[in-house]
Order: sequence, then C-alpha cells, then structure tokens
Amino acid sequence: MAGEFALIDKYFARPTPSAILGPGDDCALLQPSPGMQLAVTTDMLVAGTHFLPDTDPKNLGWKALAVNLSDLAAMGAVPRWVTLAGAMPAADETWIASFAEGFFACAREYGVDVVGGDTTKGPLNLCITALGEIEPGQALRRDGAQIGHQIWVSGRPGLASLGLAQLQGRIELPAPWQRLCIGALEKPRPRVALGRALRGIASAAIDVSDGLLADLGHIAERSGCAVAVRLVQLPHLPKGDNYDAVLRKLALECQLAGGDDYELCFTAPAEQHVAIGRIAADLELPLWCIGEMTDGPAGEVTVFDPDDKPVEFERKGFDHFS
Amino acid sequence: MAGEFALIDKYFARPTPSAILGPGDDCALLQPSPGMQLAVTTDMLVAGTHFLPDTDPKNLGWKALAVNLSDLAAMGAVPRWVTLAGAMPAADETWIASFAEGFFACAREYGVDVVGGDTTKGPLNLCITALGEIEPGQALRRDGAQIGHQIWVSGRPGLASLGLAQLQGRIELPAPWQRLCIGALEKPRPRVALGRALRGIASAAIDVSDGLLADLGHIAERSGCAVAVRLVQLPHLPKGDNYDAVLRKLALECQLAGGDDYELCFTAPAEQHVAIGRIAADLELPLWCIGEMTDGPAGEVTVFDPDDKPVEFERKGFDHFS
Repeated sequence: MAGEFALIDKYFARPTPSAILGPGDDCALLQPSPGMQLAVTTDMLVAGTHFLPDTDPKNLGWKALAVNLSDLAAMGAVPRWVTLAGAMPAADETWIASFAEGFFACAREYGVDVVGGDTTKGPLNLCITALGEIEPGQALRRDGAQIGHQIWVSGRPGLASLGLAQLQGRIELPAPWQRLCIGALEKPRPRVALGRALRGIASAAIDVSDGLLADLGHIAERSGCAVAVRLVQLPHLPKGDNYDAVLRKLALECQLAGGDDYELCFTAPAEQHVAIGRIAADLELPLWCIGEMTDGPAGEVTVFDPDDKPVEFERKGFDHFS
Repeated sequence: MAGEFALIDKYFARPTPSAILGPGDDCALLQPSPGMQLAVTTDMLVAGTHFLPDTDPKNLGWKALAVNLSDLAAMGAVPRWVTLAGAMPAADETWIASFAEGFFACAREYGVDVVGGDTTKGPLNLCITALGEIEPGQALRRDGAQIGHQIWVSGRPGLASLGLAQLQGRIELPAPWQRLCIGALEKPRPRVALGRALRGIASAAIDVSDGLLADLGHIAERSGCAVAVRLVQLPHLPKGDNYDAVLRKLALECQLAGGDDYELCFTAPAEQHVAIGRIAADLELPLWCIGEMTDGPAGEVTVFDPDDKPVEFERKGFDHFS
C-alpha cells in the first residue's frame, strides 16, 4: 500500500495553471485579480449523513466539488480555486482513483484548480473549501430581498430527494423519472452561469441545499420579510401518464422540502421579469416564478393552494442535530 | 437540544471586522489587500488520529487553529481569515462552547476572523482552511534551499511528542519537563512573527509537523539537495539533573522524529547568521543552527554523531497509511 504522500501526489497533484504555487508546500500561493472580491465557502460531507457509504466514488467526487461551486454560484462569483481535505478509513487506491476522476471532471468543467489539500486516516469525511471572485458590490447576498419582489427558482427542485427515495427502495418511480431523479442526486450541476447572469438583476439568492422552503426562509429572515409560495406556480412534474395521488404528494413534498438539489432560488423586482425570461432562454434553463416576498414576520414562509388558502407543511428543511 | 443553525449562531457567528460579509450567507466576502498574494492552507484533524478523543475541547480549539496558522507562518504570510468545518457525533453544547473558547482565543491572539463554516453530524472531525497574505515574491517556499545553506530550527522540537508519551502513560518525565512538554503538545504557538521576520533572509522554510527529519526531507527533496544534521548542534534539553540514558535517547528520538511541534525549520545562506541571531533576540525565541544543505541525493537526510559518523534512525516521520 502506497504511503500518504505518494497517494496524494499520484492522484491529486495536477497542474494548477491559475496558481503561483500549487500543492506540495505549506500553503498554496494565489494572485487575486486586481479589484475583485473573494467569495469563500466550505462544506463538509460525511458518509452516512450526506451520502450513502457505498456511493459510487466517481459520482461522489463530482458532487463533493459541485455542492461547493453551487455556493459560489449563489453569490454570482466566478469559481477559481479549491482545496480538498479527506479522511479515509484506509488508503483504498481504487476508490481514490475513482473519486479523483469525478472530482477533477467537475473541476475541469467549471475551470477551477485544486491548489491544496490534506489526506488523513479516519471515518470517511470530505471537506472542501472553494474560492471564487466577484466584482465589488455585485454579490448576490441573502439579505437584499424586498417586499413585493418576485421569487424565482431554477430547474426542478425535488428531483434529487425523489432519486434518493428510489435508491433507498422507499418508492418506485415511473421509468422516465428514474434516470432524471438519480442523475439530479448524483451529478448536480452548479448554476454558475445563472449566478453570473443574475448580477444586477436578482436582489437576493441562495442555493437550494436544505430544501426550497427552508432556504427561502433563510432569505426571508436575512431580508426581514415574509414569503408567499404559490403551489400552482411550482415547476411542472416531468411529463408522464397516470401519476397516482401518492406520487404527486411525495413529489410535492420533495419539491418544497427535499433539498440536495443545488438549484438557485432568487428574488428580483417584478420589472426584471423580461430580463429573467431572456436569461432562461439563453441558458436553456427553466426559471419559475413561484411567489413573492410579503409584508409579514421576518422569515415566515407560507404556501398557498390553488384556492389561495394557506397549506401546512411539517418538514421545513434538514437540520442535522434536531 | 438546540438545532444546527442555532448552535452555529450562538458560538461561531462573531463580528468579522476584516470581512465584507461574514458567516450566514452562501459565501463569505473578503477584500484582498491590493498587490498582495494569498497563502491558502487546509488541515483536517480526526479524533483518534490527530488528538485523543477525550482531549480538553478548549485546548483542541486552540490547537486546531494554531496548526493552520503555523502553515501560514511557514510561508511568511500574515494570517487574515479562516473557515471552520466540523463533524460531531452529537450537538454537545458544553463541548462546543469550550471548543469555541479555545478556537477564538487563538483567533484573537493572531488577529484572524472566522468568516465561515459548516457544522454536521458525524464522527468527530475538524477541518480548517486558513487564508493569509504575503508580498509577491517574498513567500518562504520549500524549494529555495541551496547547497551550503545553513539549517535552522526554532524552539525545542520534540517537546510535544514527549508530552504525548507522558499523557499516554508510556513514560514518566522529570517534574520540570511535564508542564513544558504537555504545554507544547496542547497549546502550540504558531511562529507567525518569526516567519514574517525571515522574509528576505531564509531561502526555504517548513513547519515541523511531521517530525524534524521528515520535514527537512521535504525541503531537501523540493530543493534538490541533501541534508546533514549534526547531533551536537541540536537544541539543549530543558535544564535538570540526572537525566538517565533511556530518557536522553527518547528525547533525541522525539527531537528528530516526533512531530506535532509547529516550530519553524528553515535554511539560509551562512552570511545571514548575524541577522538570524538578531531575530532570535528580538523575538526572545531560541534559533538553533543544526546542520547544512549538502551536495547529495535530493531528499537524503543524514544525521552525524559528535564524531562526525552517520547515525541510523528508523522513524523518519509520520505517515497515516503506511
């Protein structure tokens, strides 16, 4: 079995053209672009909590990086550099090679260099820190939404948690959904281009990691408004016949509270409607106007049914310790 | 038991005067100082591998941050910002409060802001990423040592591993050593001021985390030289009487291969001798010239006894997977 340093070199020390000094020293050295601000995010993924222990390591490598790039996307930042720290129970070279393949595939796709890391022995745990750059004053923060601003979401939140339920054998999805939902779970696409396009248009943004209502609640709380979500405006389900009532209900719950989707949820003044439509067309990405910010208690999220009556939902997000 | 978000807010969301936007959004926003380069390092600490599971959480909080600042020190960088991600088996509020106390004590002491993080459920694991700033071209890299350059080390490497042996009941240190060694283990002092002072003086530097010989080997390998360490020039043992032969031998092994000390080991041209002496006096920190870079196979480390004969050592560092 190769030693720690040899393993790191073999799979993770790759050229880092965007860095002055890449992996292999006490620190990486980077030259920030003049005048730009840095956006920094860190995420820890634990086997059994964030992913199934037998997850395909290639998919896991992609996703571990993608969820961090999604945080940069939600600020409107350009992804630049990442560090990767990992604990593993053993130096399983096959696993590491496959993980690295997925990780670097995502890094290439989004143009980031892996500039440093740490490898150690322990229960499987991955921690990534991502650095991006954003023009001063242009970041899409959570605290800029105002009463009357429309609420938008990209893609189809809920697919990832439906995919998880399918993989865990808790449901049997119709055939055309299966690949779509499992794909959303295993290979999320951080909405970097959308985040960049929303600079100067969106008033607030967040990525849908905890669940749509929970994440909207974060925007509402930080912005000091309430939120009204309208069921009739939610993204359509994938096309298909004969969806039974149970599946429709489950799909709705996953849409509202499923999480792990990494779509962007954002707010914008109503007059940006046309600009947002143009972005959706340019990016070939559906953007749905699902409600609006309202004059209510800060952080309150209310869902309205087609008759404009409030609906009660139990699960409002994923809290690891509650 | 408080939820994840409440816990984070309560203990880790503190004012971040050096950040444009601190914790609580998708990313932190930072404004790098014009013209400076960024130094970035990440370290993962796992219970049972890097620290004893019953370690005092306050000490652990200090040390978790200190070991990262030590990497910045070894580059000559000014510490600026850190992120902290942690997995914990349960949201033990007493533990978290105590950990945060130690962590922020270290942050205050070294002037860094904690700008972001992540908290999750899982086997105890802490991952910190630290960002510092360094003038372009001034970083103390590992690859700048040249044949003939002197090798220096700060403080007294080996104390931390002696302290660990004492805590584990493997040895019984003389009374005056105990506090010194356990203190070195539990509350390492990152040599930030030394790293800054060595800009323009040292040709290469590393912090002693894996063990003196192993870390010297990293400098030697990256610089394409060999290393000669002279036993007679090593730091003196703490003052005391009647050290027996077993203890002397163990202390020597810990000095050369113990690791976990976070002293700086650096190289410099011989003519910098006087400047280095002045730095030692200014910082009230002993600096020892322990050998020199030699014309041998890249990465080879040889230890010479008082009669100038090579000595063999088995343990040349700590490799988690070998």
